[in-house]
Amino acid sequence: MTNKYNSTYIMDTYTICGPYESKGPLARYFDKKYTDDLYFGEKTWEQAEVHLLKEANSNIMKKNKLKQEDIDLIVSGDLQNQIAASDYMGREFNIPFIGIFEACATSGEGLAIGASFIEGGLAKKVIVSTSSHNMTAEKQFRNPTEYGAPKKKTATFTATGAASVILTNQKSKIKIESSTIGRVMDLGVNDVNHMGAVMAPAAGDTIYRHLKDMKRDASYYDLILTGDLGIYGEKILRDYMKTNYNIVLGDNYHDDGTLLYDLGKQPVFAGASGPVCSGLVNFGYIYKEMLKGTYKKVLIVPTGAIFSPTMVFQKESIPSIANAISLEALL
Amino acid sequence: MTNKYNSTYIMDTYTICGPYESKGPLARYFDKKYTDDLYFGEKTWEQAEVHLLKEANSNIMKKNKLKQEDIDLIVSGDLQNQIAASDYMGREFNIPFIGIFEACATSGEGLAIGASFIEGGLAKKVIVSTSSHNMTAEKQFRNPTEYGAPKKKTATFTATGAASVILTNQKSKIKIESSTIGRVMDLGVNDVNHMGAVMAPAAGDTIYRHLKDMKRDASYYDLILTGDLGIYGEKILRDYMKTNYNIVLGDNYHDDGTLLYDLGKQPVFAGASGPVCSGLVNFGYIYKEMLKGTYKKVLIVPTGAIFSPTMVFQKESIPSIANAISLEALL
Repeated sequence: MTNKYNSTYIMDTYTICGPYESKGPLARYFDKKYTDDLYFGEKTWEQAEVHLLKEANSNIMKKNKLKQEDIDLIVSGDLQNQIAASDYMGREFNIPFIGIFEACATSGEGLAIGASFIEGGLAKKVIVSTSSHNMTAEKQFRNPTEYGAPKKKTATFTATGAASVILTNQKSKIKIESSTIGRVMDLGVNDVNHMGAVMAPAAGDTIYRHLKDMKRDASYYDLILTGDLGIYGEKILRDYMKTNYNIVLGDNYHDDGTLLYDLGKQPVFAGASGPVCSGLVNFGYIYKEMLKGTYKKVLIVPTGAIFSPTMVFQKESIPSIANAISLEALL
Repeated sequence: MTNKYNSTYIMDTYTICGPYESKGPLARYFDKKYTDDLYFGEKTWEQAEVHLLKEANSNIMKKNKLKQEDIDLIVSGDLQNQIAASDYMGREFNIPFIGIFEACATSGEGLAIGASFIEGGLAKKVIVSTSSHNMTAEKQFRNPTEYGAPKKKTATFTATGAASVILTNQKSKIKIESSTIGRVMDLGVNDVNHMGAVMAPAAGDTIYRHLKDMKRDASYYDLILTGDLGIYGEKILRDYMKTNYNIVLGDNYHDDGTLLYDLGKQPVFAGASGPVCSGLVNFGYIYKEMLKGTYKKVLIVPTGAIFSPTMVFQKESIPSIANAISLEALL
């Protein structure tokens, strides 16, 4: 489903990152950086993630001199079971709350839902937020990190941070121009150490449908950014687009997972992942470069492996999804 | 946030239940009943729940002679970690998908999201679906059932089934008249065997805000239905509304959790719970009685304890949420 929007704009963004991301090449674009450890003064990793998300949403309101009653709705999701980081963030605000789950595709899903409330005249200001935390994700989805299990080179590294966006019906410099909501794809991949392969077909399907519905070529965009396929998933997507749709992705295509870290130096395998990977890259780096005029038309395509350990133990393959959001700078 | 809608209608509903629900007093209202076991021909409970959700969404389309391309969007959520039942249902349909999580408040959340897409002219037909399965929930949230742990009388019994609704912009006999999206509430309750106490304040806050925003008395509605507070939670809500807002809920107030089973005979403690509890009661029983003219104005308020076992192990209390949806029969 592709929708063109009339009146949905980004008022501002706010990004917070952890120590790994603050050593990466995009660190200067983030509003707040934690550099010491992964606890941020909390006692558990789960609470540490709640801390980041609360802080991102508090700070974006403070920065824009908005009170809680000025915000109609918070739309938020994360990777914790029961999206606990978002739920426990939500209880700190007297603001209506919508909880969502599409793993690392959350930020795109949230923008599409937020935009629907604004386009329908049902809300004037909506906060869309997401977070991830390397250790909560490792603990929940992979192996207890104390085991020190070796990883495959196709594995990705879950980013730590929180990202928050205020959508508004008042004209600003960055418009949400259109969106294409993803379908659940599953091509039978069940390698939990290669989420790039799991997610590439979802990114491909969504980008293809977006370009077709909007009657655009891939070259229409100054940038097309999937996230978080990593270096191997990025290559798979290029092949997949060429083979299935005869679409050649050019130099304007990149993957957020390859941009967040210094892949040559940081121990992050195939790149970054987690809902906040796209959140940090798109709402930190890309948003700020769009404000400067570096990029005018950008298609962000956050990708999610909606991976259930229970289902994979039962020998199921891993479904995935991707949502495309077209951003346009009105400078 | 309370929104009045102009153009969102229910085209049809479809409900499927399991053996416990098929022995309850509302069984005749459900479109399909499984009476034998909780597997429905699948090998695992998780797959059994996927089976129900796929079947509900396939059958509602068949019954209404709709093809996949006639549906713009599926909005779905459930109790499994990573909303796996919804994700694995989603991959069976070539339809854009939005995954949501608010535990047992899911059906109300889904209706509010679906309505926002229809009100904004972004979609013409949206399926909203949810499911729960007694054994997947027991296994994930409580104790392995083989342990035979005794339960407190305030515990509830997770319903098994799936419920599906088609929302449309074409006038029908049942209109979605308005909605109030809930805030995350947490009054410090951490008793995992008393979710009625956890959720009653969320129901109270949402009902209060709905009535205030719409300038209505509780007597405006032929029925106000929370779900799934159970018999003790229902009493707590009556007290809470009286004490906090000076609102007396009359004979028009009931809780879905007390209606689904025969509480005198079935071994279900304080009543039914699970996202499909509200789904079955509201989209089976209530919807069909509204079509007959028994009730004209109904406020449904699905309630959810957004309970994370990890957070409760870390000595946290349990947040909750409730969304109110006003249904109106146009007969």
